[in-house]
Amino acid sequence: MIKTLAELAHLVGGEVVGDGTTAIAGVSDLSSAVAGQLTFLTHEKNITQLDGSQATAAVVPRCQREFSRPVIQVEDPNLAFALIHNLFLAKPFAAGGIDPRAVIGPGCQIPSEVTIGPSVVLGAGVVVGQRVIIEPGVVVGDDVRLGDDTTLKANVTVAERSCIGCRVTIHAGTVIGSDGFGFAIDGQGRHVKRPQVGTVRIDDDVEIGANVCVDRATFGQTWVKRGVKIDNLVQIAHNVVIGEDSIVVAQVGISGSTTLGRGVVLGGQVGVGGHLSLGDRVMAAAKTGIHADLPAKAVVSGFPAIAHPLWLRISSLLVKLPELFKDVRAMKKQLADLSPSSTATSRRLG
Amino acid sequence: MIKTLAELAHLVGGEVVGDGTTAIAGVSDLSSAVAGQLTFLTHEKNITQLDGSQATAAVVPRCQREFSRPVIQVEDPNLAFALIHNLFLAKPFAAGGIDPRAVIGPGCQIPSEVTIGPSVVLGAGVVVGQRVIIEPGVVVGDDVRLGDDTTLKANVTVAERSCIGCRVTIHAGTVIGSDGFGFAIDGQGRHVKRPQVGTVRIDDDVEIGANVCVDRATFGQTWVKRGVKIDNLVQIAHNVVIGEDSIVVAQVGISGSTTLGRGVVLGGQVGVGGHLSLGDRVMAAAKTGIHADLPAKAVVSGFPAIAHPLWLRISSLLVKLPELFKDVRAMKKQLADLSPSSTATSRRLG
Amino acid sequence: MIKTLAELAHLVGGEVVGDGTTAIAGVSDLSSAVAGQLTFLTHEKNITQLDGSQATAAVVPRCQREFSRPVIQVEDPNLAFALIHNLFLAKPFAAGGIDPRAVIGPGCQIPSEVTIGPSVVLGAGVVVGQRVIIEPGVVVGDDVRLGDDTTLKANVTVAERSCIGCRVTIHAGTVIGSDGFGFAIDGQGRHVKRPQVGTVRIDDDVEIGANVCVDRATFGQTWVKRGVKIDNLVQIAHNVVIGEDSIVVAQVGISGSTTLGRGVVLGGQVGVGGHLSLGDRVMAAAKTGIHADLPAKAVVSGFPAIAHPLWLRISSLLVKLPELFKDVRAMKKQLADLSPSSTATSRRLG
Repeated sequence: MIKTLAELAHLVGGEVVGDGTTAIAGVSDLSSAVAGQLTFLTHEKNITQLDGSQATAAVVPRCQREFSRPVIQVEDPNLAFALIHNLFLAKPFAAGGIDPRAVIGPGCQIPSEVTIGPSVVLGAGVVVGQRVIIEPGVVVGDDVRLGDDTTLKANVTVAERSCIGCRVTIHAGTVIGSDGFGFAIDGQGRHVKRPQVGTVRIDDDVEIGANVCVDRATFGQTWVKRGVKIDNLVQIAHNVVIGEDSIVVAQVGISGSTTLGRGVVLGGQVGVGGHLSLGDRVMAAAKTGIHADLPAKAVVSGFPAIAHPLWLRISSLLVKLPELFKDVRAMKKQLADLSPSSTATSRRLG
Repeated sequence: MIKTLAELAHLVGGEVVGDGTTAIAGVSDLSSAVAGQLTFLTHEKNITQLDGSQATAAVVPRCQREFSRPVIQVEDPNLAFALIHNLFLAKPFAAGGIDPRAVIGPGCQIPSEVTIGPSVVLGAGVVVGQRVIIEPGVVVGDDVRLGDDTTLKANVTVAERSCIGCRVTIHAGTVIGSDGFGFAIDGQGRHVKRPQVGTVRIDDDVEIGANVCVDRATFGQTWVKRGVKIDNLVQIAHNVVIGEDSIVVAQVGISGSTTLGRGVVLGGQVGVGGHLSLGDRVMAAAKTGIHADLPAKAVVSGFPAIAHPLWLRISSLLVKLPELFKDVRAMKKQLADLSPSSTATSRRLG
Repeated sequence: MIKTLAELAHLVGGEVVGDGTTAIAGVSDLSSAVAGQLTFLTHEKNITQLDGSQATAAVVPRCQREFSRPVIQVEDPNLAFALIHNLFLAKPFAAGGIDPRAVIGPGCQIPSEVTIGPSVVLGAGVVVGQRVIIEPGVVVGDDVRLGDDTTLKANVTVAERSCIGCRVTIHAGTVIGSDGFGFAIDGQGRHVKRPQVGTVRIDDDVEIGANVCVDRATFGQTWVKRGVKIDNLVQIAHNVVIGEDSIVVAQVGISGSTTLGRGVVLGGQVGVGGHLSLGDRVMAAAKTGIHADLPAKAVVSGFPAIAHPLWLRISSLLVKLPELFKDVRAMKKQLADLSPSSTATSRRLG
């Protein structure tokens, strides 16, 4: 595929500075791009890094600089470059069909335009959409639905009755629809399983990383809404709801029955307690522990979670605690010296 | 299955208020229950939520309220409802047999009443109990033992010589018996593997979540005792012992050679150091980091772990640190003003 | 295999105290060793534990003690014992060949001396080294390279174009080469996938635990260098570089584009932010959160990470915060009493 710089600029709403007829045959990052390729620069301050690149052209942020080669100036080079990169990678779906070593249960509905690899096992009544790809080693339970253009990577497990939308990608080793973790305690201190009879619903355009767990609901459904992106090794407990376009970074754990609004961002290793409600666009820094509801747009850090600026302030004070304790000790002594009558009190506090 | 309310009340040791002959055909939660079904209410304070439910009857906590429909009053509605739900779900085991596409190693002992799916691979000398279910994609190493009524969900791996009890459920993607993490360092700073030749023993009535790791022992055994319930993505290192009826919530990590007593509860993302001993009924809140032995019934939080009430107190004081520092600064100035002779000291501390 | 104590001492550079011709037929730990076996003792202080052991001989630290049986005295008993144990376990590679139920893609290069189990699926153009073991359920993508003597345990996934060195062991359920987590945000707040077209490179003598994720690079490569040992459930993001002989304990997460030097040690559940650089031999205690570059040999704890001794000091002061607040309150009152003129100030601070 060859595109002119002007065509690419048009795609991303940018402006060409230089020769718009420059032919672009592919993309790469600054260090590995070769002649004929487009590269990109995220920040104006890194502009000198462009000098060493062999790329023919670059996507750059809007600025007043002069460039040694043709560029496309855009508001957000990350976005523009992602759009162009996806354009170059796009290709028509090539159906591999159903491998004869796949096991297809009774009553499955599978269109001809799919790729189902060897060692795949589909249960009974699975409904598969157009252009679905199921890689080797995937196990799909009874009555699961997979929307159009969805991909299950190798060794994924999707348990019975899960409902997965269109253009969803689930990476290798992930488990969808495993039992939620719910027990009652009997008189002898033993745990009695609370049956987990609900389902998992994953809406369109969701991407889920590798070795993630999304548990089925106790009753009702665990629900990952449109456009959510989940990184690796994340735990989504039963009956959790994650709002549209939220981002859940690696190793986050979200406890049962908690609801996240739209556009929530949880940094790596964040923990969220059960039965909580996080408003739209809440952001939590890495390792935050959230124990209480949060209003929309709250930005939190720490454990227990507090406002991020306060957390920064406290973190900077914590390292001064040894000095503070020393100061207070000295002041107590000064006070005792100043005020003979208060000696008794001072001793008690010391 | 149809049961009368009186029969169900008898099962759970509760009392019927209303018509004990009311026929119950199933159970569900408040919002999805339909006519003919039993629902439940955990807390008296939520009693008004019952009004909107279409359930014919409900399990409720003992209280003096009047109800608009027949109820079973019990001490613990969670427990009673779990017992009733399990009753309605119970059904005789229907053996699916051994799928011809499963691979069974030499010398395995497999009774006729089992279900072993396609793409299952059993090594040599595996001993399988009655009514065992092995879902597709499971790999079982040589000389593993699986007790009666045990279920291995899809894509589970059980490494050689692991010994798993009766009525154990292991959810998808979990790895039992992988090598413990043990190395010695040689003179060049390189790591020499310490062979991990022990085993894993999992006792009866244990449930283990999805994508969990339970490592085999260096020597001897890693041991998960009767009735333990482990959530998803948990790490159990080599030679760990977990006491009966303990609860280990998602993403917990327990380091090597640590022993947990009976009925221990570890909240989500807790970390426990190596070679420690936690007494019976220890409880650790989510994200706690445990670095030292804990006596029975200790309730801890934070990192390093301290008594939970003290942790709450300190957490509430941390947000006042900026104010405290300001106070102390002001007091130092006041003291300096009061006591001209101590000016030198004051400056040193500032 | 039978070795004399003198032969074993020679192997590990130790000195025999007692009869060097003593025959040793195997090894075990103190509690399970039997007659004819060698055991070991790590610390001199535990010397009495040797009394109860049935082992014929022991590896012990250099000391002036008298022993009731022949011993090998060495600088580091852990290392010496590991070397001897590995000697006893060593055996020639017994090739199992390619199971007829494995699926081998077109253009693979596979030598005769390998073991490839049933339900293994290799893509196209996979290059397999000598004496490679691929356990059942493993899925390997197109154009992957596996070096000599490398083992992929059950249900591992290695995605396309990953390059894995010699003597590498990857434990069950681990995913190598899944997509990195990278998105741009469009004008509607939706996430546009940034294609992840790089690879994963794993050098010689690396061991990776169970259910680990090592993501492929956005461009270029994610690189785990020689001799690195990674525990279970670890997250290695795109474009991370881990220096030689580093140790990464369970449940650690390392964010994108971060570089670790040689011999770094990260304790369990540590989190490392993105685009950071950690110098050689950095050590981070369990649960540390690293937000900034660290110089070589830094030893850190806490979140945000600070020098370990300072963290210990602060941790010990935190539990005294309630007392400190009480002291300061009392001092303010004393000051107010002492200095009538400052009453107004005091009230403001109260």
